[in-house]
Amino acid sequence: MSIQKNDTITMAHGEGGRLSHNLITSVFHDAFKNIGLSVLDDGALLPAETTASVFTTDSYVINPLEFPGGDIGTLAVSGTVNDLAVMGAQPRWLSLGLILEEGLSIAQLKRIVHSIAQTCSSAPIQLVTGDTKVVDAGHGDGIYINTSAIGTQVFSPAPALQRIKKDDVIIINGFIGDHGITIMSQRTGLQFDTPLQTDCAPLWNLIESLRDYAADIHMMRDATRGGIATVCWECVNGSSFSIELDETKLPIQPAVSGACELLGIEPWFIANEGKVVFFVNPDAADTVLKLLHKHPHGTHAAIIGHVTERSAHSVLLKTTIGTRRIIDIPAGTQLPRIC
Amino acid sequence: MSIQKNDTITMAHGEGGRLSHNLITSVFHDAFKNIGLSVLDDGALLPAETTASVFTTDSYVINPLEFPGGDIGTLAVSGTVNDLAVMGAQPRWLSLGLILEEGLSIAQLKRIVHSIAQTCSSAPIQLVTGDTKVVDAGHGDGIYINTSAIGTQVFSPAPALQRIKKDDVIIINGFIGDHGITIMSQRTGLQFDTPLQTDCAPLWNLIESLRDYAADIHMMRDATRGGIATVCWECVNGSSFSIELDETKLPIQPAVSGACELLGIEPWFIANEGKVVFFVNPDAADTVLKLLHKHPHGTHAAIIGHVTERSAHSVLLKTTIGTRRIIDIPAGTQLPRIC
Repeated sequence: MSIQKNDTITMAHGEGGRLSHNLITSVFHDAFKNIGLSVLDDGALLPAETTASVFTTDSYVINPLEFPGGDIGTLAVSGTVNDLAVMGAQPRWLSLGLILEEGLSIAQLKRIVHSIAQTCSSAPIQLVTGDTKVVDAGHGDGIYINTSAIGTQVFSPAPALQRIKKDDVIIINGFIGDHGITIMSQRTGLQFDTPLQTDCAPLWNLIESLRDYAADIHMMRDATRGGIATVCWECVNGSSFSIELDETKLPIQPAVSGACELLGIEPWFIANEGKVVFFVNPDAADTVLKLLHKHPHGTHAAIIGHVTERSAHSVLLKTTIGTRRIIDIPAGTQLPRIC
Repeated sequence: MSIQKNDTITMAHGEGGRLSHNLITSVFHDAFKNIGLSVLDDGALLPAETTASVFTTDSYVINPLEFPGGDIGTLAVSGTVNDLAVMGAQPRWLSLGLILEEGLSIAQLKRIVHSIAQTCSSAPIQLVTGDTKVVDAGHGDGIYINTSAIGTQVFSPAPALQRIKKDDVIIINGFIGDHGITIMSQRTGLQFDTPLQTDCAPLWNLIESLRDYAADIHMMRDATRGGIATVCWECVNGSSFSIELDETKLPIQPAVSGACELLGIEPWFIANEGKVVFFVNPDAADTVLKLLHKHPHGTHAAIIGHVTERSAHSVLLKTTIGTRRIIDIPAGTQLPRIC
């Protein structure tokens, strides 16, 4: 009953019997042995901490499972690590919940598990506990992943919505829309002159480099589903502030702006998986920008707007021709199952 | 765009736009407001702890979603709480990851969310962070749930596989097989004279009542997928011990033993969701049994076997006619998607 090259997932892999054990030892144990997972425990024992912790969870249902620059495994680890990072927390412990669809090829599962292990190493974060379930063909889509994680709060003061102030400078750490357009191009067969790939990456190392400026970094949020516009809207909706973004300052790759024009969508609504919106004290904005530029995930960082007094709308966009456009979050967005 | 009585989940509910916000505030906020969830944060800030923590994760894909005595919500909270409890950890913080299928009725979602809130209250555990994704019709099965949780280690010494000794007495806290047979009867239309229901329940309160006997309770494990036989097998496989179970001592309801005979399956392989296998120092076994009998989830607790020197097989069953049968874990088990 050892696992063969052309094997696929069967219902029995999820039922706690011998095939479940076999899957765990042959697929997971090898990949995870160097990153700390003790695969047969029901839970992981963590040491006592003297500082506060942050706890976060995310499920990932992206389609397709593999795409230029990453796969659902890269995405699941990066996305959850980034949720901790934007709260000023150092990623520490990760859990992994897999829902596999009957018929998934074990070769593909192994590739994704390898990405998970690799992204854990680079984040870095330690995978300490996991769970696998199998659903019958036609009730899943290859693989869904839940990653939950615990981090140690190291930014002091912690970034918080309540710390956003008028005149805060809004910074993004690079090109927007790469992830969403990459996925959309995979689904539609759209081709680009310059190959585009997801920006999906764990960002704790980047954010940690700003730790000395915690007092000046009022708020951070990763701009995933709904893009930077939705993040901006969420950060000031119901507050006494509004946000003005400057269209001419938004870092957008030509392939992305071309695709947006072609498809009639707005780059500020497109999901990113390696981008953070920073709200920064104007006195520290240049220093923060310089620090971001030093990091591989911040090379194209830019100031893209600022916080204003409250106006009739939460988010305005100063367009390339100098007019102001209302940015309201849509009912849904353009692309389902982007993460 | 408020949510109406006959509404169903659409793809837009999962895309981070206005409908996602609407779902969160109208369905989740109401149900969870009294159990601590701040619904719009990416993560939850937890206080520093002076003791070690336990971290666990589980996904739930049970079919059907609702069944006598519970639903997937009851199951998800209970199952994860019990994983902490059997490690001797007091449940503290819970995360909730939902994967909803397009077309799920919002009325059913509300019932399940209500069960989640209710089970959190009775466990008790505090729901602190969550995430919702939507998949297209035909790529899910109504709702899949991941619950991850953090507990505080309070049993000292902690129960552990390495603490199992020869002559340890094996105790179960009540009837076996109720959950599995309840689910199976829902799927097959099997009817019983006496209505059967799942044993699904959070067991921390029961286990906490044994805390003074932590030194005598060498190991605990909840007997879910694969039943008590698989738990016994996992606990001694590869060790220098074997286990002998006594068939005449196994607490089994007549409806369950009848269904097992009819279906040709063994009750020791059937999943439970409110049963723990205890490995107890023989000197303390009677005291532990008495304490279990005092608790509503331990009324039918019984001594069902003991740990022996290593024999050729991990688990033997002394049958009702006095012979010994080898219990080997099967490749899969009889029933997929039982939890």
